[in-house]
Amino acid sequence: NINKKRLLSTIDTSAGCGTLPNGGLCRLALSEEDQKIRDLFKEWMKESHLDVRIDDVGNMYGRRPGKNPDALPVVIGSHLDTQRIGGKYDGILGVMGALEVVRTLNDYDIETERPVEIVNFTNEEGARFLPSMLGSGVAANVIPTEEILKIKDKDQIRFVDELEKIGYKGSARNRLHEMYCYLELHIEQGPVLETNDQSIGAVTGIQGISVLEVCVKGRTSHAGTTPMENRKDAMRTAGKMIQDIYQSAESVPGLLITIGQIQALPNVTNSVAEQVIFSIDIRHPDDAMRMMFTHELKEKLSTKALIDQVDIHMKDLMDVKAEKFSEDIVSEIQRAADKFGYRSMKLISGAGHDAKYMNQLAPSGMIFIPSIGGVSHCEEEFSTDEDIAKGVQVLLELVLRFANH
Amino acid sequence: NINKKRLLSTIDTSAGCGTLPNGGLCRLALSEEDQKIRDLFKEWMKESHLDVRIDDVGNMYGRRPGKNPDALPVVIGSHLDTQRIGGKYDGILGVMGALEVVRTLNDYDIETERPVEIVNFTNEEGARFLPSMLGSGVAANVIPTEEILKIKDKDQIRFVDELEKIGYKGSARNRLHEMYCYLELHIEQGPVLETNDQSIGAVTGIQGISVLEVCVKGRTSHAGTTPMENRKDAMRTAGKMIQDIYQSAESVPGLLITIGQIQALPNVTNSVAEQVIFSIDIRHPDDAMRMMFTHELKEKLSTKALIDQVDIHMKDLMDVKAEKFSEDIVSEIQRAADKFGYRSMKLISGAGHDAKYMNQLAPSGMIFIPSIGGVSHCEEEFSTDEDIAKGVQVLLELVLRFANH
Ligand SMILES: NC(=O)NCCC(=O)O
Ligand SMILES: NC(=O)NCCC(=O)O
Repeated sequence: NINKKRLLSTIDTSAGCGTLPNGGLCRLALSEEDQKIRDLFKEWMKESHLDVRIDDVGNMYGRRPGKNPDALPVVIGSHLDTQRIGGKYDGILGVMGALEVVRTLNDYDIETERPVEIVNFTNEEGARFLPSMLGSGVAANVIPTEEILKIKDKDQIRFVDELEKIGYKGSARNRLHEMYCYLELHIEQGPVLETNDQSIGAVTGIQGISVLEVCVKGRTSHAGTTPMENRKDAMRTAGKMIQDIYQSAESVPGLLITIGQIQALPNVTNSVAEQVIFSIDIRHPDDAMRMMFTHELKEKLSTKALIDQVDIHMKDLMDVKAEKFSEDIVSEIQRAADKFGYRSMKLISGAGHDAKYMNQLAPSGMIFIPSIGGVSHCEEEFSTDEDIAKGVQVLLELVLRFANH
Repeated sequence: NINKKRLLSTIDTSAGCGTLPNGGLCRLALSEEDQKIRDLFKEWMKESHLDVRIDDVGNMYGRRPGKNPDALPVVIGSHLDTQRIGGKYDGILGVMGALEVVRTLNDYDIETERPVEIVNFTNEEGARFLPSMLGSGVAANVIPTEEILKIKDKDQIRFVDELEKIGYKGSARNRLHEMYCYLELHIEQGPVLETNDQSIGAVTGIQGISVLEVCVKGRTSHAGTTPMENRKDAMRTAGKMIQDIYQSAESVPGLLITIGQIQALPNVTNSVAEQVIFSIDIRHPDDAMRMMFTHELKEKLSTKALIDQVDIHMKDLMDVKAEKFSEDIVSEIQRAADKFGYRSMKLISGAGHDAKYMNQLAPSGMIFIPSIGGVSHCEEEFSTDEDIAKGVQVLLELVLRFANH
């Protein structure tokens, strides 16, 4: 059995890096706070006698050899970066849970057949650098290495420079290559498990994501002297678009739409906006629905720009297909939950996760535990100690099973 | 007569501080670029034997004594700061024109009865620090000195610290006090003079300005997992508001409405916006109309927030009444234009100007010259060399008349 007290205190300690006033965390990828938690995690891995390595995008791996050190490893983990206003479980649970699994194996001197590797993926959140799930995407060879060089944050600071600066630029040789399977424990971040009064979710797949960047370009001019009919006000058109985007989503059941990011230029009170750039995050469990909606939306936005005589440029920041996880792993998760008497159900993930890209490399699966109130990406994000312990116990059970195959 | 070549070359040289790629300027108040143009202007004033002084908000004055050095001075000037994406005439023409007037008086060894003072007011644009017309507002005792300490730019840098840093924090003793009259030459920034084929505008007054800051507060949550019906999306409500604000302005003739500034929090693609803050600039020649519209708008926005179950906070960033200039000065401007055979007309200013606050201290007036295409607060802002020379010639004529009263 896992050591619940140790697990909870490790999660607590980890929440010391990037603490926000109301119990949440701000630990953006490759920030000073990220560096701190990485240093701490590295120390903890070494204390657990793991063989630590860092790859070229800063993914951190800790390997525990098995009886057969050349066998493909069972990999478990998640990410330690957070949103700008984030919680202390999203991602963290999966990494600290993985560490607890290794510590428990050590406690009982268990030697598995296969190696077990724990991992912290870089920049899963996409809160500082886009795209999200960057580290796992590179590890899975889905995001090409050349792309990395172009990635900058909103202050135009390059991903690669920050990686170097915090001392986590490792070698491409260290990347995760072949593995036996990948398992990720995560909070649900939605209301399904809580609503259905279940402790364990066996995740069947992840819905697809489109992220568009819309740039509306008008002409700046004086707020006090330019007659309304002579204006090309980018904000006016953007306002109509935003209103319309949300409205058109209402008629599509299951569609989630979020305009989370916006920036105006020159962004002063007394000049008409020259340019407004905003993001649209579009999700639907059915890829065809998502793609159709996105396609129609693009057409509608182009028409709106045409009518208002402003320019529009649209860019796909993300277009990621839905992912289906191994059915065997799904049933193993439910079997493990049953063994301990935990209530479990199957569900689909609304959020993207590193497991999405790992599924390209090997059969992957995810264990969810409830998020109280269904909230996440906010300081109120919370899961109970009991559910946390149950999740890690199930993870341990799966590792024991797969690492002894 | 003024020296047109010298005038144009001085304006050209001044455009070397804060040059943008397409002919415009970015010379935000108290920036390094502002420091540069201030240093240059100070040097030019000293070369013209002016007695230079700086007051406690960085307003720069250069005094040319008259036969009667204790008589109230005729004050002429404007501002040298620009918008974030601004032109090279807005404000600059009035300061460099004033310098050219003094230089011409020196050329011909003219000793006026009254002293003549030229001035560069700090932060007229309001592009970096709000409110706009800050320097003249403080000089006119309309903006209280205590307010200055609270003023910060968007990066939370304090006005007073920046003033100190660029070396332009002078003494309150140096403030402009009593004066005989104030005259400001400025580009029109609108289309009226050009449309009517006139070279000189005699400005009868300035329309009032309201600037509101609207803060919509919802709740951040995950873009991929939060059902649409469980969201408090501040952007969704802000989008409806922006759309509605522009639309409701359509039914009010003469009303100008501009949403120029917007900021979202946490401002990431995959989190619902917790908070959206935007500005509304509202102008109308009739104060009653402006105030009524503003009042009704506030009510409407509160209702919208209520319906969407989000919080709203509104703050008046500016609420400045319309100003009427001295009729005597208006007729003097037209008389001077007539004398040189320049076509002139009366008009009202859509933009706020330092003359607005100076009018509280002494009779004030403004001379406008055409803006080609009516555009301003953009790089395309342009006035012809001929109109520039005409404007300064009229300014000289008025100075000769009033300074010899
Ligand atoms: N799990 C999680 O919050 N991932 C961020 C990627 C996304 O779903 O937008
Ligand atoms: N003249 C000018 O552009 N002033 C800025 C103040 C305003 O009108 O908003």
